[in-house]
Amino acid sequence: MTEQLESGSVIGILGGGQLGRMLSVAASRLGFKTCIFDPSGDPPAAHVANYHLKAEYADLDALQKFADSVDVVTYEFENIPTTALDALEALRPIRPGRNALAVSQDRLTEKQFLTDLGLLTAPFAPIATIDDLHAALATIGVPSILKTRRFGYDGKGQARIQSNDQIENAFNDMRGAPSILEGFVEFEREISVIGARGIDGEIACFDPGENVHVDGILRTTMVPSGISASMRNDAVLLTAKILNALDYVGVLGVELFVTSEGLIVNEIAPRVHNSGHWTQNGCITDQFEQHIRAIAGWPLANGTRHADCVMENLIGDDISKVIDLSKDASVALHLYGKAETKPGRKMGHFNRISPKS
Amino acid sequence: MTEQLESGSVIGILGGGQLGRMLSVAASRLGFKTCIFDPSGDPPAAHVANYHLKAEYADLDALQKFADSVDVVTYEFENIPTTALDALEALRPIRPGRNALAVSQDRLTEKQFLTDLGLLTAPFAPIATIDDLHAALATIGVPSILKTRRFGYDGKGQARIQSNDQIENAFNDMRGAPSILEGFVEFEREISVIGARGIDGEIACFDPGENVHVDGILRTTMVPSGISASMRNDAVLLTAKILNALDYVGVLGVELFVTSEGLIVNEIAPRVHNSGHWTQNGCITDQFEQHIRAIAGWPLANGTRHADCVMENLIGDDISKVIDLSKDASVALHLYGKAETKPGRKMGHFNRISPKS
Repeated sequence: MTEQLESGSVIGILGGGQLGRMLSVAASRLGFKTCIFDPSGDPPAAHVANYHLKAEYADLDALQKFADSVDVVTYEFENIPTTALDALEALRPIRPGRNALAVSQDRLTEKQFLTDLGLLTAPFAPIATIDDLHAALATIGVPSILKTRRFGYDGKGQARIQSNDQIENAFNDMRGAPSILEGFVEFEREISVIGARGIDGEIACFDPGENVHVDGILRTTMVPSGISASMRNDAVLLTAKILNALDYVGVLGVELFVTSEGLIVNEIAPRVHNSGHWTQNGCITDQFEQHIRAIAGWPLANGTRHADCVMENLIGDDISKVIDLSKDASVALHLYGKAETKPGRKMGHFNRISPKS
Repeated sequence: MTEQLESGSVIGILGGGQLGRMLSVAASRLGFKTCIFDPSGDPPAAHVANYHLKAEYADLDALQKFADSVDVVTYEFENIPTTALDALEALRPIRPGRNALAVSQDRLTEKQFLTDLGLLTAPFAPIATIDDLHAALATIGVPSILKTRRFGYDGKGQARIQSNDQIENAFNDMRGAPSILEGFVEFEREISVIGARGIDGEIACFDPGENVHVDGILRTTMVPSGISASMRNDAVLLTAKILNALDYVGVLGVELFVTSEGLIVNEIAPRVHNSGHWTQNGCITDQFEQHIRAIAGWPLANGTRHADCVMENLIGDDISKVIDLSKDASVALHLYGKAETKPGRKMGHFNRISPKS
């Protein structure tokens, strides 16, 4: 039997960005309180949380205090320092578990995990030296992308190699960090599946969304996507395979390329995912509540979609569109309360809803 | 021109119950922070607010501090002590304004306001003495209901008079408080309109819901209601009349009896209203965000409904139904995080959604 966290329990969230913010709101709908662990002074999640513990991830006393004040620990980003996880793991359940983090924190481990499962990925090779890079390029060819194995997101820690004269600059861009060379995938579309797995192994997936990235940052997600019903099934089954292999608990995002060879896994994210924000207005239970249900041992929602939806991120100065958007009856706004607007910073998003086609 | 409160501003909410809680969540979607003023230690709204100021409504220093930390003041209940309002009014805008509170805090003033507008109410008479009560009963007859003019809600401060032998007990039940005798209205149905008015006078109403009360407490609200299109229009126009007469800013709940004589106004509530909770899952913009939009000078949503919905309150031990409800794919849960379950206490509600008929 699964133990169910009682309404009124406290969910600890590592990271206080917009994902933590929306997780906190979802937790409140089920009667949970939240405690946000975040080193910054005014993180978006703290605006809607019961408690914000402001401390560094290396602060063992603070981690102890955090663990003492919560019933379960989850996180809104995957690059949590190992020391913090070591300290917390001894004290409270961490969901999703360490295994999922270990896989997704390292692009090389992730690619090897996926290929071991029999799933397709872009061709890849580990890169430690400039010689490794030359050797890998001889096989993988150009264009290809050199990425740090760890701590990259939204296009950061990446260098595209289109021709031989870019090799040295790309290698230097990695600043000596262990890296991975990934071949370029010719894709028709990018899609993603937001899947969830409960403590008892129950699985539910939302309808795959079709994504458009600009400059390495997600711009829009559209549901329904333009893929066939059979490919939709493939995407969901592949997600279930990953969830089971990781003995996963919570919501997971799987980014996929649709190619002539079939579905190629781009990356997995062991958390709620930007491309699942449409569920806030397209489903009765959104990805945030689904994650909270999973980590609290509650029954999962089945992911039914009741509307068509286009999610669009508000990045940097896009935030100035808000007043016009607020006049549009088909638009649901979700702003993150970030004090400072910067180029490339995700300031909010909106979901444009239309009747289910 | 209307001044628009910028995203990032702080909304002060007097009262930290479930309505304040859901207002705070809605405010976050528009990027606002909230500060909750509430004397209790762990009010539901504090779980999802940026700040909870724990103080009594008579604490002038705390009120000053509250005013200093917010940009606009609103409230989640109408029985706010006049001294608190006097102190705040000099410092920050209070929306909805004092006028709406003055009218709705006193059942007699409210009835007079409504009849002055040409609207129908139950027959009523002010009661100060037992002689007043005898005289009023001679005109209004039985059954009728004696109510305190102020501070009653959810059936509290009320005594039904069915026969002459109950008169004295009913009068004593009021404990000397100024009261009002209301005649009993034979109604076919109870409906309510959740209306909103912006700072610039713009008005928008949600579809009227049909309510069922049990023991003086709202049990369910259903949309669409069973009334005709013309009566729906009447209900909306009547609500607009009230909103305009009060020069109202924010969301207002209007409870109506559907009778053979037409629509009779039961009462008005100058706040978001339990019978509007269905909007959380039936509309793109719910009553809580609509209220925040209004008091922040933002454009109002048009109130479009995209689904049929039945809202049901979880009262007292109903909270034990939650796990079963969480397995129902058509149900959206909204729990209030109240630590203690008591008979008659609203612990949460759920919205059961179906495609728009």
